[in-house]
Amino acid sequence: MNTPALCERLATALVENRPSATDTDPLLRDVLAMTTGNPGKLVRARLVYAGALTQGLDEAAAAGLACAVEYFHVASLLFDDLPCMDDAGARRGLPCAHRLHGEAATVLGALALINRAYALIGFSLAGHPVHLRLQATACIDASLGLSGLVGGQARDLNFGATDRSARSISRIAAAKTGSLFWLAVYFPGLLAEPNAVERRALKSLCVYWGLAFQAADDLQDALGGSVDSGKTAGRDHVLDRPNLAHALGVPATRHRIGRLMIQSQRALAGLMASRPERWSYLLAFHVEFSTPITALANAAQAA
Amino acid sequence: MNTPALCERLATALVENRPSATDTDPLLRDVLAMTTGNPGKLVRARLVYAGALTQGLDEAAAAGLACAVEYFHVASLLFDDLPCMDDAGARRGLPCAHRLHGEAATVLGALALINRAYALIGFSLAGHPVHLRLQATACIDASLGLSGLVGGQARDLNFGATDRSARSISRIAAAKTGSLFWLAVYFPGLLAEPNAVERRALKSLCVYWGLAFQAADDLQDALGGSVDSGKTAGRDHVLDRPNLAHALGVPATRHRIGRLMIQSQRALAGLMASRPERWSYLLAFHVEFSTPITALANAAQAA
Repeated sequence: MNTPALCERLATALVENRPSATDTDPLLRDVLAMTTGNPGKLVRARLVYAGALTQGLDEAAAAGLACAVEYFHVASLLFDDLPCMDDAGARRGLPCAHRLHGEAATVLGALALINRAYALIGFSLAGHPVHLRLQATACIDASLGLSGLVGGQARDLNFGATDRSARSISRIAAAKTGSLFWLAVYFPGLLAEPNAVERRALKSLCVYWGLAFQAADDLQDALGGSVDSGKTAGRDHVLDRPNLAHALGVPATRHRIGRLMIQSQRALAGLMASRPERWSYLLAFHVEFSTPITALANAAQAA
Repeated sequence: MNTPALCERLATALVENRPSATDTDPLLRDVLAMTTGNPGKLVRARLVYAGALTQGLDEAAAAGLACAVEYFHVASLLFDDLPCMDDAGARRGLPCAHRLHGEAATVLGALALINRAYALIGFSLAGHPVHLRLQATACIDASLGLSGLVGGQARDLNFGATDRSARSISRIAAAKTGSLFWLAVYFPGLLAEPNAVERRALKSLCVYWGLAFQAADDLQDALGGSVDSGKTAGRDHVLDRPNLAHALGVPATRHRIGRLMIQSQRALAGLMASRPERWSYLLAFHVEFSTPITALANAAQAA
């Protein structure tokens, strides 16, 4: 399936699998319709879907897992944008959910998505052997909990109290952005029963991709209105949030991004040397990610 | 184990199983310490623990499930008390978490608890047959999602727009309070592979207990400072939230509570007639619940 066809398939699945019940509060229904009906590039969902199919899951279960990871991602954006967090105004080219439908409905919508995500994972993996399900459970626990997304967001909010070094910034980025790659790559990768070498390479790939994405996001935020992202720009500076381009400057951030993409490539090469039939699906994603990230770095040079 | 010993065992488990990581943000750590270190009466956790042990789970797995349901409950209270929801000031005799540690840390703490709860369920049930795990997943999905806790909370917040009838109030109560009994009673009950008659009786018991608890809570809120509950009283009136004692008056609410307790007793009798060895553990809970609820109804008569 090519990327547009895949996006369409997953966009349909996101609507079909979303939380629904008769007689749902209209505001809550609107939050769910808005967040599952206006998907972004579905990077994470596509990674999960392709990975799960490659590792032998049937189509419906793969789509279920993909929706689950996307729902976690969308829920994390809904929470991040709240007034008590980043107080953002726009997301994916639209006003944020809490600005349109209120904070309460936004919080409840995010919780409904998280609940649905766990149910979809439970259904999709129910028939798998116990040792795989235990590993999957531990992976989700680590990715979303204090050592992952939630812990990273807490440190992000409290960034003003840290040493503001590039190292602190990268640690927060690894927890926040890395954790969702962890779910998108390592989590379905578990179904291939990776050996120790493959596990290390998968972990490296998640870290490098996550750091590269976050660095590109930081660069975009720092460049402000000059690059269109569909979300509020310049927030990091206003909110005193970690931003690599502020800490290192634009040229060093460009250089850093280039190095991270090379490191990701090395991790991929390690996987390909082990079992190409299990991991070659990741190559197309690497190419897809490199293109806009490189373009952004070039735009930064021109600016 | 008697109730105080059981509470102590579960209080220890709540601390041992809670989310933890090195280098957690201090505010987030404080929210988690506060919410898992100051347990209430642990009604739900004790119900799950006793149920899971009776249905054959080992002790650690039973404690894990009990903590999971308690974490869901605590997380729901953290969200309910937020300024955008009930804007409550006190809970369990202390200022609410968001008043002490801020909204952001409270939201993140609640999310960490939810994440941990799902992990504990995954670990505790990993060894069970696939049909049981599928039923457990569906049960949690229904209890916490749009047809349960989240949907009930949305309708609760939007109560002003309903017909304000006792029927609407009971529907909201069944979704909000009933859903946590659903997790506390029906969910571990699934491990007994209940037949159709037992399923119906378990469902009835959850509904009647849930409605009785909510009606007693409404009565307590309506009576205001005259009964000590450790949380802000009179909020329902201020916030225009559903309250049975406001809709029916105090005497009719007392009568309703009495009837609900009799209906619960009938559901219990049905279970005892089927397999007493599976369900007799519920009798002690019924006695425990009846006592304060009856006392409250008597206090309402005296007031």
